[in-house]
This record gives sequence, C-alpha cells and structure tokens, in this order.
Amino acid sequence: MATLTPVGLLRIDHVGIAVADLDEAVAFYEGTFGATCVHTEENAEQGVREAMLRIGEGDSMIQLLAPLSPDSTIGKFIAKRGPGMQQLAYTVADIDAACAGLRERGVRLIYDEPRRGTSNSRVNFVHPADAGGVLVELVQPAT
Amino acid sequence: MATLTPVGLLRIDHVGIAVADLDEAVAFYEGTFGATCVHTEENAEQGVREAMLRIGEGDSMIQLLAPLSPDSTIGKFIAKRGPGMQQLAYTVADIDAACAGLRERGVRLIYDEPRRGTSNSRVNFVHPADAGGVLVELVQPAT
Ligand SMILES: [Co+2]
Ligand SMILES: [Co+2]
Repeated sequence: MATLTPVGLLRIDHVGIAVADLDEAVAFYEGTFGATCVHTEENAEQGVREAMLRIGEGDSMIQLLAPLSPDSTIGKFIAKRGPGMQQLAYTVADIDAACAGLRERGVRLIYDEPRRGTSNSRVNFVHPADAGGVLVELVQPAT
Repeated sequence: MATLTPVGLLRIDHVGIAVADLDEAVAFYEGTFGATCVHTEENAEQGVREAMLRIGEGDSMIQLLAPLSPDSTIGKFIAKRGPGMQQLAYTVADIDAACAGLRERGVRLIYDEPRRGTSNSRVNFVHPADAGGVLVELVQPAT
C-alpha cells in the first residue's frame, strides 16, 4: 500500500473569531485581554476586514473577522450563530502537500487551489463536515 | 484613578472541541492531522472525558471534550450546536489576579473561585456574553 503524503501541521496558527465591529473588538481585546494588534487588512475576496492579535508571548494568534457585507461568509455566520469562534487555523510549511495528504485521507477541501490569506499567505479550508464540525483553515505563510 | 490589576494572559493554552466519541475523535486527529495525544483524563465535576493533543511543535493544544452524560455542559452543547469548537483557553500565571483584573473591567466569571481543570490546573470561565460570544477559559497550570 502506498504511503500517504504527510499533512504536516506545524502548530495552531490562529483562532478566527467573527465580530460585528472590528474596531470595537480590537479595543476590547486590547483593553480587556491585554492583546496586541499586530496587523490589520481587508480581504475583499473573503469578504472580511480583519485584525491579527498576539496574546502575551504566544505564537498562536487571535484573528478577528468582521464582515464587509451581510451576505459574506462571516456576515452569514453572525446572522445564524451570533459572534464567536468561527474557524481554527493551522500553520503548514507546504500547503499543496497538506491538501494532497488530506484528500488522500478522504477529507474535502473547499477550494480546488489555495487562495490568498492574511499577509499574502496561501490558504485553504477543510469542509467542517469532514473535521468534526470545525472549519479548519490551513495557512502557508508567505516567505 | 486606581490602576487596574493586569489580567496577564500568557498565550493561547488550548482550543476545546466538543466531540461525541472521544476515542474516535483522538484516532481522527492522530490519523488525519498527525496530532499526538499527550494526556487523557476524566473530570466528573465538569462532566467530561477529555484528551489533550499536541499539533506539530506548537505550545497551544487541542482539547477534545466528550460528555459523560447528555445533561452535562458538553452534552447540551452538542445537542444544541453539534460537535465543534466550544471554548478558547488562555494560560495565566496567576488565575486569582486574572479573575480580579477581569472583574475590575466589568467581565463576569462563571465560578466565584477557580476549580480543578486538566492535570490539576486551576481554571475559571468568562461568561460568553462578556467575551463577544466566546466561552473563554483561564488556565493556571499546576506547578
Ligand atoms: Co483565518
Ligand atoms: Co478547556
């Protein structure tokens, strides 16, 4: 039997949290949890304005995601479930190998090919139905 | 005006994921995501059987939580929302200071005093309504 391609998850990259108002949420995380906002950007393709926050000295970040429109993925999530945890992202060294390895194991990826994520990373998502109800994101950071 | 007590979050401790069947979920995470199960235990007070899994070389863990009964917190979560992400835990050095700091900032904690968590840690939880819909756990590891 052929060996499966290693999926190669390196660590938790970030937890993505859906919020209605990005600036309010950033101020809350900074003031209440002492987080540090290290990056913000808009991703029109994903329909989000987002902020990356560091907690203490940790590697794993909090990604706050606010919808650009009600019919975006995050807009629809908030309408259905309210604000809260929406995704769990893992860092990979090689997203093409990670996706191949997952497909070999019968796991479906949402995109045929990776798309642009935060800070020009390459990202794909696992179908939550194939990951115990968790929307899993795979992130290969830009070099 | 008096200075507020620093809350002192050190890093993401773990993401807690509700699962119906712990052994099946551990096998899935090991086989599909290459995770390593480093600890399992039962916490009757919390109504869970749980496993802690390391992803790659990361500090932040995945905590799989299976209900000991349908009317436990995790049992009710799965009945209402299905399996998936249920909590987001942060490591603190001093949970008493962390809880005091949060209360000073108007955030409610679920327990008056911390309770026993994984591996004899001391834990408390923030009311999700005071944390943007996220069930936040604070974890002071046992020394
Ligand atoms: Co993300
Ligand atoms: Co926990």
